[in-house]
Order: sequence, then C-alpha cells, then structure tokens
Amino acid sequence: MENNACTMHSHCIEMTMEVHQVVPPPHMSTLKKLKARLKETFFPDDPLRQFKGQPLKRKLILGAQYVFPVLQWGPQYNFKLFKSDLVSGLTIASLAIPQGISYAKLASLPPIVGLYSSFVPPLVYAVLGSSKDLAVGPVSIASLVLGSMLKQEVSPTAQPVLFLQLAFTSTLFAGLFQASLGILRLGFFIDFLSKAILIGFMAGAAIIVSLQQLKSLLGITHFSNQMGLVPVLSSVFHNIHEWSWQTILMGICFLMLLLLARRVSIRKPKLFWVSAGAPLASVIISTLLVFAFKAQNHGISIIGKLQQGINPPSGNMLLLHGSHLGLVMKTGIITGILSLTEGIAVGRTFAALKNYKVDGNKEMMAIGFMNVVGSFTSCYVTTGAFSRSAVNNNAGAKTAVSNVVMSVTVMVTLLFLMPLFQYTPNVVLGAIIVTAVIGLIDIPAACNIWRIDKFDFLVMLTAFLGVLFVSVQGGLALAVGLSTFKILLQITRPKTVMLGKIPGTDIYRNLHQYKEAVRIPGFLILSIEAPINFANITYLNERTLRWIEEEEDSIKEQSSLRFLILEMSAVSAIDTSGISLFKELKVTLENKGVELVLVNPLAEVIEKLKRADEANDFIRVDNLFLTVGEAVASLSSAMKGQSSTITEGAHTIVSCN
Amino acid sequence: MENNACTMHSHCIEMTMEVHQVVPPPHMSTLKKLKARLKETFFPDDPLRQFKGQPLKRKLILGAQYVFPVLQWGPQYNFKLFKSDLVSGLTIASLAIPQGISYAKLASLPPIVGLYSSFVPPLVYAVLGSSKDLAVGPVSIASLVLGSMLKQEVSPTAQPVLFLQLAFTSTLFAGLFQASLGILRLGFFIDFLSKAILIGFMAGAAIIVSLQQLKSLLGITHFSNQMGLVPVLSSVFHNIHEWSWQTILMGICFLMLLLLARRVSIRKPKLFWVSAGAPLASVIISTLLVFAFKAQNHGISIIGKLQQGINPPSGNMLLLHGSHLGLVMKTGIITGILSLTEGIAVGRTFAALKNYKVDGNKEMMAIGFMNVVGSFTSCYVTTGAFSRSAVNNNAGAKTAVSNVVMSVTVMVTLLFLMPLFQYTPNVVLGAIIVTAVIGLIDIPAACNIWRIDKFDFLVMLTAFLGVLFVSVQGGLALAVGLSTFKILLQITRPKTVMLGKIPGTDIYRNLHQYKEAVRIPGFLILSIEAPINFANITYLNERTLRWIEEEEDSIKEQSSLRFLILEMSAVSAIDTSGISLFKELKVTLENKGVELVLVNPLAEVIEKLKRADEANDFIRVDNLFLTVGEAVASLSSAMKGQSSTITEGAHTIVSCN
Repeated sequence: MENNACTMHSHCIEMTMEVHQVVPPPHMSTLKKLKARLKETFFPDDPLRQFKGQPLKRKLILGAQYVFPVLQWGPQYNFKLFKSDLVSGLTIASLAIPQGISYAKLASLPPIVGLYSSFVPPLVYAVLGSSKDLAVGPVSIASLVLGSMLKQEVSPTAQPVLFLQLAFTSTLFAGLFQASLGILRLGFFIDFLSKAILIGFMAGAAIIVSLQQLKSLLGITHFSNQMGLVPVLSSVFHNIHEWSWQTILMGICFLMLLLLARRVSIRKPKLFWVSAGAPLASVIISTLLVFAFKAQNHGISIIGKLQQGINPPSGNMLLLHGSHLGLVMKTGIITGILSLTEGIAVGRTFAALKNYKVDGNKEMMAIGFMNVVGSFTSCYVTTGAFSRSAVNNNAGAKTAVSNVVMSVTVMVTLLFLMPLFQYTPNVVLGAIIVTAVIGLIDIPAACNIWRIDKFDFLVMLTAFLGVLFVSVQGGLALAVGLSTFKILLQITRPKTVMLGKIPGTDIYRNLHQYKEAVRIPGFLILSIEAPINFANITYLNERTLRWIEEEEDSIKEQSSLRFLILEMSAVSAIDTSGISLFKELKVTLENKGVELVLVNPLAEVIEKLKRADEANDFIRVDNLFLTVGEAVASLSSAMKGQSSTITEGAHTIVSCN
Repeated sequence: MENNACTMHSHCIEMTMEVHQVVPPPHMSTLKKLKARLKETFFPDDPLRQFKGQPLKRKLILGAQYVFPVLQWGPQYNFKLFKSDLVSGLTIASLAIPQGISYAKLASLPPIVGLYSSFVPPLVYAVLGSSKDLAVGPVSIASLVLGSMLKQEVSPTAQPVLFLQLAFTSTLFAGLFQASLGILRLGFFIDFLSKAILIGFMAGAAIIVSLQQLKSLLGITHFSNQMGLVPVLSSVFHNIHEWSWQTILMGICFLMLLLLARRVSIRKPKLFWVSAGAPLASVIISTLLVFAFKAQNHGISIIGKLQQGINPPSGNMLLLHGSHLGLVMKTGIITGILSLTEGIAVGRTFAALKNYKVDGNKEMMAIGFMNVVGSFTSCYVTTGAFSRSAVNNNAGAKTAVSNVVMSVTVMVTLLFLMPLFQYTPNVVLGAIIVTAVIGLIDIPAACNIWRIDKFDFLVMLTAFLGVLFVSVQGGLALAVGLSTFKILLQITRPKTVMLGKIPGTDIYRNLHQYKEAVRIPGFLILSIEAPINFANITYLNERTLRWIEEEEDSIKEQSSLRFLILEMSAVSAIDTSGISLFKELKVTLENKGVELVLVNPLAEVIEKLKRADEANDFIRVDNLFLTVGEAVASLSSAMKGQSSTITEGAHTIVSCN
C-alpha cells in the first residue's frame, strides 16, 4: 500500500481546482484559411521552399533545374560515371529489345512499335526525369490493357492501320492525362490504386497475359480475341487439332531455360546478368535454330519480314475526332494511370533504397511529356518498368545516361539489325513474356496482407478475380470502388469507445483494450474516433443513445448516470450537420437528466462550435474541458462538494495553500 | 514563483520511472470481429435487444408489434384520443385535397391521381408506421422530380396512358427501393443527402416549381415542357400574347390571400388553422366565382370534368419490361430517395419534439410498402409531408388515426364531391402550389451555414444552382458528389499538427491553438488526425519529412532533433499500406539520426502493428508509450541520465524511496 501511494499522482490546487481552458485557435480570415488549406492539399511538399530568399539569377537556375533535372547532375557528369552507365545501359538494352518486340505483340501492335517505344521515350526521360534508376520502355500491364481495350471496337488484324492510329492517340491522351495530373498536382489520384489492389491486379493480369501466350506456345492459329479466362481456355481446347508439337517442344525448352535463368538470378543477385541476358540469348539461339533447320516450314511460326529504320513521325496518325474518340480517351486514361502507378512506384522504391528523393508531381510531368512526344514518334504507352529498372540498378547504373545508352543501342538495332529478327520464332517471344509476367504474382505479399488486414485481402481478391472473370479495367474499377467504399463506411460508422481510468494515473483509455482501466460511477466517457459530419450524425446519435440506455440498464441499482463525457481528440473535423448533432444530443440528454460534457475539441471543432453557439446554449466553460481527467475531477468535486475524495480510481485532490 | 511551483505536477518514480505499457486488445477471432463489425454497421440500434431473455409468447407479441406498430398503441386507444385525431384529421384533409390535386398537376398527372394518393397510402401507413405525427400523401418535390424525369422520354399530353403507366411503375420501384433500404438496413444512404444539400436543393426546386406555375398563373397555353430556368422564362416571355389579364388578376388575389394566411400562421402558431384552411377556402371561393360568372368563357382555364369513385386497381398498368424500364427504375430510385429523406426527416423532427423514438429502418419499410401498395391502387409516390405534418401536429394529432380520418374524408370526396371541382380554376391550384413551396426556401438556414462552414455553403450552392441550371437530379448528384469528395479529401489530406507542452501540466496540445504551449527541444511531436490508409500514406510521408526538414532548418544552431513522436490517438484505423508507411518512415528517420516514437496507438492500430512486426523491427517497448508526457519524460531521462531535470516545460522528475 505504501508503493501504491507512491505511484499516485497528486494534483495541487489553489483555492479552486486548476482547470485548463479549451481555447479556439487564433482568428484567421476565410481567405487565409482557404489559402492554407489549398497549400496543404496541393503543395504538401512545398516545392517553392528552396526558391525563398534567393537572388533572381539563382532563382532562374533553380527553376531551370526544376524543369530539367539533367541540369542538376549533368555538369558533374564524368567518365567514371559513364563507364557504369555504359555497362548498365547495354545490359538493359539486351533485355529491352526482346521485351519491346514481345510487349508490342501483347498489345496487338506490330513488333517494331515496341522497339520504336524503346528508342525515343528513354531519351526524353533522360532530360526530364528525376530518378536515376528508372529504365524506360513499354511494360506488360499497360500493353495488355491497351490492346484489350482497343480490341473491343477495332480488330487489329482486319483494320491494322486504324488500330495503330487508335494506339498512338491513346498514348497521346495517356501522356496528356499524366502530365496534367502532375501540373494540377492531383497526383493523389494514383494513391487510390493501393498496394493491395496492385498485387491482386498484377497477379490476375499475369495469368491473363500468360494464357494469351498459349497461342504462340501451342502454335494455335485461330485464337479468341477476348481476354477473359473462359473464352481463352475454350479456344485453346477447341483447337487441339491446331496444336503443333514442334512449337510446343521449342516453347517448353526455352521456357525452362528462361525460368532457370530467372531462378539463378533470384538466388544469387550478383548473377543478375544471367536473367537479364537470357531473353536476348534465347532470341539469338532460337533464330539460328529456325534459320538452320528451316523450321518455319515445319509448323513453327516466325515474326516475318520487319521494317528497317528509326521511328517515322506519327503526328498525322492521331485521331482527335470520330466515333472512337470516347474509347481512345478511356484507354488513354486507364493505361495512363496504370503506367504512372508503375513508374512512380518504381522510382520511389529505388530512390528510398539509395536515399534520394523523387518528386511525384515532377515525375508525372516527365512521364506524361515522354508519352506525348512518343505519340508523335510512333511510340505507344511507356513508363519505368520494374524488372528492367531492377536490372539497371543491379548493373550499376548511376544516372539516366544508362537510358541514353539503351536508346542508342535500340537505334542501332532499328537501323541495321532488323533483318536478323525475321526468323525469330513467335514461341520464344511468348516464353519471354511468360517469364517476365510470372514475377508479377507475389504470393508472399498476398499472405502478408491476409495476416494483417482481412479487408485489404478482400480488395486484393476482388481485383484478382475481377481481372480474370470480368475484364482488366472492370476488375480495377471494382477494387477501387470497394476500397473507397471502405473509407466511406469508416466515416459512416465511426467507432465510439468507452473509456476508463487507468488506476494511479490521470489517463483515460479504452476499457476493452486496457483491462486494468476502471469506470467512474456517474460518468459515461465515450471517445468518438472520426470526423463528425452529415454521413454519420444519425449513427452517432443512435449509438450514443444506446450506450446511455445500456449504461442505465446496467447501473440501475447503483448511482445513476449524471454526465456523458465525449472525448473529442479524434474528431478532426466537423460540419454544420455535426453541430446539429450536439444540439440534438444536448436536448435528448437533458430529458434524461444527463449533462453533456465535451473534452478537448480540436481547433476546427471548437471554432465552429463557438461560432454556431452564440447564445451559449451548449458550449459553456463548465461543460468544456481540456482533458478527461480534469473534467472528471472538476465535475466530481462540483457534485460532491470541494476537497472531497473520489473513492474509485485512486485519484486524490489535495488543496494547497 | 511560489504559485508556479504549486501548480506543477510531480511524478513519483520507484527506481525507474513509471511508464505505462501500450497493450493490444484481447484477441478475437476474425469471425467474431466480422460479426461485431457487421452488427455495428447494420444494427447500431440493436433492435433485437428487447427480445433478449423473453419467453416465446412475449417474443411473438413483440415481433408482431415490431412489424405492425398499430398493435402497440391500438389497444390503449380511447375516445379522448379519437376526438383529437378527428379534429386534426379533418384539418389535414382540408389541406390534402387541394394539395393532392395541385401536386398531381405538378407531376403532369390527372388531378384525381393526387386524391387517390391521399386515400390508400395513409391507411397503409396507419398500420405500419411508427410516427404519430406524419401526415402522408403526395409531396411537391417528389411530384416535380417524377414529372420532370418521365417527361424526358414520354409526353404526358401526347401519350397520357403510357405516362400514367410509367408513373405507377416508378412508384412501384420507389417503394421496392425504399423497403429494401429498410430491410437491408442500408438507411445510411439517405444520410448522404445532408441538410446543406437539402436546403439548397429545396430552394432551387421551389423556384423551379414556382416558375412552372407561371403557366397557370398567367394563363399561358403553350408552355415549355422543360424544367430549367432558361427555357421556362423564355417560353413565358415568348408567349406574352397568351397572357390573360383575368387569370393574372385572379391569381394575384388568391396568391396574396394565401400568403397572408401563411404569414398569420407563422406569426401566431395558434392560428395554424388559418393557413391550413386557406387552400380549401380558396378552392371553394374561386370555384363559386367561376361558376357564378361563367369565367371559363372569359379566359380562365378550369380543371374540367373529373372522374368519380375510389381508386381503380392499377396492377395491370405496371410496365416491367420494354424500352422505358431504365428510366422508370432511375425515376423510382431518385423519387424514392427524395421522398424517403423528407418522410424520415419529418418523422424524426416530430419524434424529437415529443420525445419518442422513430426507427429509421422500420419507417423505410413502412413508407416503401405503402408505395408498393400505392402502385397497385392508382397512386403515385407518397411520403410524410413536412407542411401537412406540421399542421397535423399543431391541430393536436395524437396517433396515426388522424391519417385514417383524412383518408376517409378524401374517400367521401372521391365518391361524392368530385363534380364540384369541375369549375375549379387552374390558377388557384397554381397559387396553392406556390404558397406551399415558398416555405421551402430557408434563407436564415443558408446564412447560418455560411457562418459555420464555408464548404457546406458551397455544397448548398451547388445543389441550388445545379437544380436551377442543370436539372433536378443533376443538381442533386453534383452536390452529393461534392460532399463525398470533401470526405475523401479529408482522408487523403489528413491534418498533422505539432504539439507542445502546456506549462505546469503533462498535457500536450496543438501549438497553433494553445499559445501558452511550449516546444520541447530535441523532440518533434506530431499528432495525426485521421485513419492511415492507402489514400494518404504518400501525403503523410511527404508531410512528415517536411515537418522534420523545417524543424532541422529552424534548430540548426540549437540542439539537434533526436525524436519524432507521433501521437496516434486520432488514428482510428490502419490498413496494410498504413503499416508500410511506418516501416518506410523508420528507415528514412534512421538515416537522419532521428528515432520514431509512437504514442497511444488505438486497439486496431496496435494490433495490426504487432501482427505486421513479428521481427520487432519498429515496435519495441522503448519507442511505444501511452501518453506523450510519459514518452518525453522517459526519453529525456534516458537521453540525459536518470534524475535529471528537463529545463524547459517545467516538468520535474522526482525519485521516491
């Protein structure tokens, strides 16, 4: 018992108990508040901070460096850095060439468009981008979505030119959308593609993409144009007579080779070049094999004759009117969001790894502008690819110059090496795609989500199943809708928690969480854990009354309920409906003989309450406290007379002087 | 200075400082948690509570009373109550008959449908409804919206039968929608029509409705079929030659009379019967005038011959297929939501006034079932009307029997008095509508909203202008979208607030709000005021780093930053993305030599953090505290050695024993 006395806090009071006032924040004009709010909403990173107090010349230099990050690192560039960038640039080029051809096929575009897209965009990004590790080019997900969405209205085989025009126009819209997100600082839109959604979506997309490759892997010529699981599998099994054993054999061999290479690199990260070089090696070996054995005459389909030369201009191919405009804009926005999400995530990941900063809005502008330029130079949607950036980083890339090296290598290929790809078998391209997308299925991450948050798992599952059974964009929309609905539901049904006093302290905490906490007779102390607004006042009213009724039922024999204390520390905002809740509660409680007491309303809340309550109806000094402890102490002593001792809760009020 | 010493809190410590542990809540299985969550979401009022522990027979009785509230109050019904209900029933009938005819015209339906709708639905509500004051019948807003939406596809003059069929079918869908909201306990949907939206919307609708009445008030025959401000005004001024001075004179006289009556009743609530009786009186006087002076031959348009007899069955008029199904469902849902909102709001208002409880979900079922029955008996959408319920209440209604009295009166009218209305001039009906809807414009409430919450005012204005210039449903959708966007924005850009110590206490509060609060050197104490999830982790990461950078800039000369304390009392929930924020922050902060400390994570948050952190990477006892005070005290003493005194903040650590 001596120890007990020692762990007790003691409050000293002079004459009356010391009670701290809740004060509203200093007055600010509506305009000033609006300005502060807008700044927090659109400029949380305060990008103009570095300009403050600088001379004009310095400001101009900083401005130029802001728009063209190359001006930041360019002057310090040296031969040592270039050596690293050269190696990594050549490495990612060896990956980019076969992937470019494969992904273009995935988007139902001519293979050469994939190479065009690996030439111009990396050059643009090298000048505008702020990430040192991003390797730019076409990516699997955006390719898949672009192809599948455009196929809804136009067949790539029946109207190849129109299809190409739609692809370039979609790229233009994707770029414009991305850049405007950055310029308008609305980057938070891409935050709605949460990690859980992306994991589910990418796994589903990987399966869809792999299934599409069954066409080349099995050598089928008549294949479904649709993307869903069911039509693809049905066209696989309805065309068994088209299966070609030569193709299947070749496919299995190269698939095993590529998967083995991937496994080696995962096991030993130092051997990253094994998986980085494997696709190009496969292409070379398989092309030689086909050429040597004239395999194209034995049931193995090959790419066929390819154009030569660098990107032709495509400004005249942009369709800015006509019946397909709606589809093209939708495709642009969806592929734009998806590729932006990948690009920003990759950029942030490597920036965090190497401890530098990537400005999200700036990156959006860079990627957007890159795609706008791309749409005029025969490129389709590009972004920073995860797999290629990882290789880039592993290969020792130091700056965006590695993108330039890759770009130059692709240019050389386009100018001189295209005839060599004529005999490349499609089956190898299929195997390359399967190997690339299989890494998108992240089962450990899915298990982790299940363990931490069941609802996130549900969102992930929705994205996964939606992509498989509804459509690529449908699955995405369902999952985003579900996770937004969850946020709204959290607001609509905020938690109300009953608090109790932790013995020997002045601390009040959740009775359910802290078993040692005890209740104070005569008081019902609730904590409201959400902003109070139109969406939840009905619920809060009902729920509070139920708390009181339950309380009244349980304490019928004991002393009756005198005070309802609402702890408002977690009520970050309130609107006019929320104000009316307090007015209503006050009336209802008065009918029951219970007094409403508010504790620690935050700046915005106390400000609005005071403004709404000019008549001092429900906000008075005697029902407004800074802490629950002070509220209970003050109200108890008012109830039982000064200098008394509260029996339960081991709280002693001592009078000084 | 002596006083200062006295207001100080003193902490006693035995050997080491007393620090309270943050504990996770007791373990609950996923299923149990899901059950609790579902209960809070769908059954916040715990409607089955009264059934608990009752014998079976009692349970059955309670169940029957739950479905048919009439069984609750019916047995105690007596003659005294009936006398009150008779008076109030007759009063509201005198209002319901002219309003019924007028509102049906507003919906472009035959006038008699308005009377049908005042006969059957009140009877159904009397059995199922739980409000004692609701006076049921057609209302202006739902009538307007029904008419204006159906007119988009079908002309009420060219295809009157089809139009009537669509109206009944819309009523069926409205009823089904309302009832299913109640059965599925999804009543929170109507909460999204916040008070601010309703004020703006109703004011806009009142203006639209009043402008529509210019047709009858000016005696124009060729009038726009559209609802917007512009087309209506243009058709008013393009048809000046159709204006009839006799009609205008009569209109002005009766409008003045009705407005005067309304004013009298507002000034002296005891004279409520003046405005309640005025419409019927106007109808009678104007009919007599027309009849006496054969005014129909002098440019005054009259209702014309009306059918006689009570509601014919209309089950065969419900169109459940065909090309208009989409429109009919949309109309049903929108009028359903609008009429439900009015009905529930009216019920709750009077329940609060008389201190009884209205169960929202039960009311939804009652109103929904009433409309389903209505759609089979030639009625269109009905609900509890505000003006009529107010009259009902003022006239002393005690139970739903007043609805029955009104219903019987309407029946008598339908059976015997219909020929009398033949000569009723349309201009008087127009005046009755204008008088009724003018009360929907609530300028003091709008001013109040402006004073308390500028954003709510913007939402209100959006609803108002949207209704006037876009469309009735468009304005509504815009306003709901805007207010939902605000909620999402609050989550996407949560407030982060810097805390300081209030001298002489252990309380830490917003430095901006509490000017006396002081900062503790070496500590940056931030409070995060929202759940942490996918939508805000990017922002929170950026914002936190900016806080730290600003802090580092400002204290360069002083002692450097050692600890970032995140006060988590307002973080009511977290998801897997939120967890990753802490992992990332931890890494970033370690690079800067700053330690991350969490204070008072709530039940769900600490549970998920612990589950995500099996390796004890970022949640250890030494960076997890129950209060900011304990965290600062403990970390300071760890920093500077035991038994030292923190210079600033007047916090003394005393060692006992």
